[in-house]
Amino acid sequence: MPSSDSRATGHRVKAAVLGCTGLVGQQFIRMLDGHPDFEIVTLTSSPRSAGHCYGQAVSWSAGGDVPHSAGKLEIQRSEPEAVEAGGARVVFSALPREAADRIEPELRRRGLSIFSNASCRRLDKDVPVLVPEVNPDHLELARGQAAAFGGTIVANSNCSTAGLVLVLKPLLGLGLESVTVSTFQAISGAGRRGLAALDIAANVIPFIRDEEEKMSRESLKILGRLEAGRVEAAALEVNASCGRVPVTDGHLLSLRLDFSRIVDKETIERALAEFRGLPQELSLPSAPEQPLIVRAEEDRPQPVLDALAGRPEKARGMAVSVGRVRAKGSTANCWALVHNTIRGAAGNCLLAAELALRQGLIHRED
Amino acid sequence: MPSSDSRATGHRVKAAVLGCTGLVGQQFIRMLDGHPDFEIVTLTSSPRSAGHCYGQAVSWSAGGDVPHSAGKLEIQRSEPEAVEAGGARVVFSALPREAADRIEPELRRRGLSIFSNASCRRLDKDVPVLVPEVNPDHLELARGQAAAFGGTIVANSNCSTAGLVLVLKPLLGLGLESVTVSTFQAISGAGRRGLAALDIAANVIPFIRDEEEKMSRESLKILGRLEAGRVEAAALEVNASCGRVPVTDGHLLSLRLDFSRIVDKETIERALAEFRGLPQELSLPSAPEQPLIVRAEEDRPQPVLDALAGRPEKARGMAVSVGRVRAKGSTANCWALVHNTIRGAAGNCLLAAELALRQGLIHRED
Amino acid sequence: MPSSDSRATGHRVKAAVLGCTGLVGQQFIRMLDGHPDFEIVTLTSSPRSAGHCYGQAVSWSAGGDVPHSAGKLEIQRSEPEAVEAGGARVVFSALPREAADRIEPELRRRGLSIFSNASCRRLDKDVPVLVPEVNPDHLELARGQAAAFGGTIVANSNCSTAGLVLVLKPLLGLGLESVTVSTFQAISGAGRRGLAALDIAANVIPFIRDEEEKMSRESLKILGRLEAGRVEAAALEVNASCGRVPVTDGHLLSLRLDFSRIVDKETIERALAEFRGLPQELSLPSAPEQPLIVRAEEDRPQPVLDALAGRPEKARGMAVSVGRVRAKGSTANCWALVHNTIRGAAGNCLLAAELALRQGLIHRED
Amino acid sequence: MPSSDSRATGHRVKAAVLGCTGLVGQQFIRMLDGHPDFEIVTLTSSPRSAGHCYGQAVSWSAGGDVPHSAGKLEIQRSEPEAVEAGGARVVFSALPREAADRIEPELRRRGLSIFSNASCRRLDKDVPVLVPEVNPDHLELARGQAAAFGGTIVANSNCSTAGLVLVLKPLLGLGLESVTVSTFQAISGAGRRGLAALDIAANVIPFIRDEEEKMSRESLKILGRLEAGRVEAAALEVNASCGRVPVTDGHLLSLRLDFSRIVDKETIERALAEFRGLPQELSLPSAPEQPLIVRAEEDRPQPVLDALAGRPEKARGMAVSVGRVRAKGSTANCWALVHNTIRGAAGNCLLAAELALRQGLIHRED
Repeated sequence: MPSSDSRATGHRVKAAVLGCTGLVGQQFIRMLDGHPDFEIVTLTSSPRSAGHCYGQAVSWSAGGDVPHSAGKLEIQRSEPEAVEAGGARVVFSALPREAADRIEPELRRRGLSIFSNASCRRLDKDVPVLVPEVNPDHLELARGQAAAFGGTIVANSNCSTAGLVLVLKPLLGLGLESVTVSTFQAISGAGRRGLAALDIAANVIPFIRDEEEKMSRESLKILGRLEAGRVEAAALEVNASCGRVPVTDGHLLSLRLDFSRIVDKETIERALAEFRGLPQELSLPSAPEQPLIVRAEEDRPQPVLDALAGRPEKARGMAVSVGRVRAKGSTANCWALVHNTIRGAAGNCLLAAELALRQGLIHRED
Repeated sequence: MPSSDSRATGHRVKAAVLGCTGLVGQQFIRMLDGHPDFEIVTLTSSPRSAGHCYGQAVSWSAGGDVPHSAGKLEIQRSEPEAVEAGGARVVFSALPREAADRIEPELRRRGLSIFSNASCRRLDKDVPVLVPEVNPDHLELARGQAAAFGGTIVANSNCSTAGLVLVLKPLLGLGLESVTVSTFQAISGAGRRGLAALDIAANVIPFIRDEEEKMSRESLKILGRLEAGRVEAAALEVNASCGRVPVTDGHLLSLRLDFSRIVDKETIERALAEFRGLPQELSLPSAPEQPLIVRAEEDRPQPVLDALAGRPEKARGMAVSVGRVRAKGSTANCWALVHNTIRGAAGNCLLAAELALRQGLIHRED
Repeated sequence: MPSSDSRATGHRVKAAVLGCTGLVGQQFIRMLDGHPDFEIVTLTSSPRSAGHCYGQAVSWSAGGDVPHSAGKLEIQRSEPEAVEAGGARVVFSALPREAADRIEPELRRRGLSIFSNASCRRLDKDVPVLVPEVNPDHLELARGQAAAFGGTIVANSNCSTAGLVLVLKPLLGLGLESVTVSTFQAISGAGRRGLAALDIAANVIPFIRDEEEKMSRESLKILGRLEAGRVEAAALEVNASCGRVPVTDGHLLSLRLDFSRIVDKETIERALAEFRGLPQELSLPSAPEQPLIVRAEEDRPQPVLDALAGRPEKARGMAVSVGRVRAKGSTANCWALVHNTIRGAAGNCLLAAELALRQGLIHRED
Repeated sequence: MPSSDSRATGHRVKAAVLGCTGLVGQQFIRMLDGHPDFEIVTLTSSPRSAGHCYGQAVSWSAGGDVPHSAGKLEIQRSEPEAVEAGGARVVFSALPREAADRIEPELRRRGLSIFSNASCRRLDKDVPVLVPEVNPDHLELARGQAAAFGGTIVANSNCSTAGLVLVLKPLLGLGLESVTVSTFQAISGAGRRGLAALDIAANVIPFIRDEEEKMSRESLKILGRLEAGRVEAAALEVNASCGRVPVTDGHLLSLRLDFSRIVDKETIERALAEFRGLPQELSLPSAPEQPLIVRAEEDRPQPVLDALAGRPEKARGMAVSVGRVRAKGSTANCWALVHNTIRGAAGNCLLAAELALRQGLIHRED
């Protein structure tokens, strides 16, 4: 498919990053630096930052220094006109929900392909919530949007959900029927200033608004079957309890899994470790060699040590680590860890865009 | 029963605290200060501290200052002879497992009543694991010991388990069949120097040695029925996953509860809030007015705010807080918080001793 | 002076707490519960909380439960009319700077006595910045205000400054000429939501806006001499560097002290330990027996262990702990710890009001 | 100088890392991976780890994965025989003090060049304490050792000291006479298990054993002048107060600097920013382009954001960040941050070895 492989030709698709100064926006910019498929032409943010050069406006915390190319760009206001004027054909959106709800449909109407981390359209029937290793076929839904609107919106799942469905996908074949999950979520999941220091210092907050509902709803959609142009929710029980812990990055999940038949530790570990998806088959630029890494140690995964799991270098934070698999009868337990702003947000969006490009949903410049 | 009520006569039973400098030892000393039933006559610790006066040897962290009475006592070595020589008839033991295994049976042979926080005897058939509100009748097992050995050992449950069984007890009547629990345990649960700072800083460790097995085994024993002089384990599934979080005090539990019939939030909350046990009936000195406090807020209980729940003042840290009760069909979820070194250790041991005194298992001095 | 001793008569002076839901407001309410001199009649807060009963509106974190008396009061809006209507004659203000600047002068015009934690009037020539053990004579300035305005404003010092001047006061007699201080300030000093969790998690922020200037300026005023109705700033160099650390409560100060003559550790420790002020002489209700506690251990004071220093119970958090005094030639070093929301805010304000009552600046009801 | 430039010839000098599993040992291994001058042939550790392959024995926390080459090596016991048998000619030692004191002199007798992070020989008259940008000429001392013993020991400074002297060096020319420093040191400075979690959780410990003395003594030696084969201590006052904060990596220093003449912010910042040393001149592999990075922001440097400062990639953590320079009269203040296990330990040792190689103190293989 030479026409859609930008690497073969050297052409890169022009891209905009919306909400560029936040934690997810920064991860987009870090991962897009030197990217073979996409080239940042526009950065947008709130009026407060607009007009400043990115390197000076951002309080960079995504590791290393602000990439040179992005550092020199002047930030635009998050408005459809600014994005269109910049010439972007692909949009990576880290906008807050309200702004996303207003701007993304407008950009779609103008024919752009939006890969969005916002939660507002995830339940739309024609919007796929894509975790590329899990439900690449759902991208088909976006073709329907293209026909109807000109452009497309592909949604990213909730951050915890991305990790959860990656673990669940290879277990469906073993007869998985129900999952009970308690989450230990990092403070970066609440955004740059979303959580007061005093509230979480040496504390746990056993509540994250709407998170439990999202985990259940989105998991069933992502794991559902695309049939006759619509997604049939998976037949699975997802019981979630979500807590916030004083950890910087990496959402840790404690899972109980109930199967329709007897399971054993080795079978489960093998199913997880051997799991590969279309991104691996296509060698997408941000795809980790192994989406699920099974740890043999008795006390892993741990956020500080494992949040950035994933090889090669460009896929750091894209692999989900699983450990302490235990099985007894038809029940199993394990722990899983997902980097919330990479696999749970920017990285997963980017991987979806890489897939869309290979699938011909995004076209190279004429 | 005037002869066993020390408050009526002014006589207090002489007591020893073994392992007095650790976190649990300190809580014993704090709670025994000015206690109506017991009077500390002997403190013991490792050879390193022995010979020093308590106030100077201890690195006090149980709140406020070292109680005056205990502060002036000279620490003895943790040896049976030293305890016996001091005249104690009741022993509160915060010894590490190995020392407890060696010393406690010897003290029992010498006729003393030991209330122990060590895990080594919890599975002995004749040793009750007592949570006074839950299984006060199990104290009967100790009478058998008294006949056989002269003295008695009453075990305290594992710290997380104490909180768990208090929540489960009032739910058994609603048809509880299975509980799935993920724990967020505080660092003080690992003891004064049990955890390296670097391992837990801004991290979660998804493993605590033997903890999951203890929670399951001990819960079933505590909730079991005493029949013909032995405990029949409860018919309940307990599936536990234990994690350590960077919190100082207070183990938080995320629970999924499965019942044999449809349940609703109000019924569950009422059963929890109205639960009272024998300690409340007898107005034991360390009994909280309400063993279970149901929180109405959407984001409670939290370790920093709720670990010390319990009234009156003398019962702070003795109540378990429960929040976020949710129900759907025959499944419910909630979060619960237990102060691990008070209700989960020293406080629960002391409450057991108070009960034993009222029940005539400990006799006032002749 | 029986007419001004409310304890003798049973009359308590009616008081309002402005900004009652914040951290400092909560400490006011905790310390005023059962207070012998003052009785809360009015609580005010922002429009968001106004109209609700205090027990429900506050996210209480000052230890224990919300005091019963205050818990039932309905919160008023922070407006002069509401305060006056409630009948308060004394006002404890924990208002943010802007609100304080608007409301406090107006209340003064209406004849009320305001004890304010806000920074806006501290540099006013006729407003004393009072640390009652250090400069009780500065209260005289308030009499001038009373004559000019009807009411009075007595300012509280900046939180770190309160700790600093208590340490410096007894050293002035030893020839102190210069102090270099680096602060390790707790997150509660930034207010309930003043600091984002992500910014301070496992981090230090080497900057607190205006804090270094405040420490220098206010110290010199507080330690200055009242002469002919105005304060002559102390002749002392104060060089401050202020940092924020991930600690909940308690500002720790690292001090270098330069004297005009040779000093030794023992002399310095004795001067600190023996220091007493007018509040101790008058046995004011919130005065700690000993304002400065000198620790002999090699690794104290520590925020977690020592922030609440001070006896009796009612004066917890009112004593400053000093440790690691070292001296060499005419230079000495030490560390000091002050509870920022108690001695550094609410407690110090309250102590000032207690002093003002004894000094006849506040009158009992006619 | 082709004979000493291993990159020109492809020959790399065989090296051993002693104490390879600890935090500093891990940094040695990370930085030596793919190093142009040195090649690891031997790894040693305590008997507990010896005999295992490194990849399995280490609890890796130095970022990314264990380097492949080192991961497959079998760990030897930390004994001179094992090191010699492996053929190493250069030794990087992260041994604890006691082991270092026993083994390093023995290795020196056997003709090896030891670059040691241990503190035991730092005060030896013939042992240079090297911070290569600051006192490269002190390497001359090592030539004397080579003559006397066959081999050499080059000591690394204390971790905080390395950061301090880098900042002080360019200021000496401005008339610096005295420095007062308070440190905010990270927990990794205490070693892998050197600090109990409970002691430092949300706390500050205002004491680090011997640290203040080390900072003063070592700074004066490093900044001293080599004259007639011995170091004359610098004429400078160093007054240090050392505290531990709950931060993972990066020691932050709050500095007051007193000069013999009036100074201004710009002059100081320029002197710092323009400072270069011999490592930069020689383009040593681990040398940062800029040893001192002056930050313009009002709230930097911060451990989380700046500990890994330094370019290029191979020199991350080798630059010291300085910020908030303020000046008034002949006094200035600033904050500085040094990565304690990189520039303060392994990285600085390695840079010293790179320098020694260029200076002909280490010879390429014959």
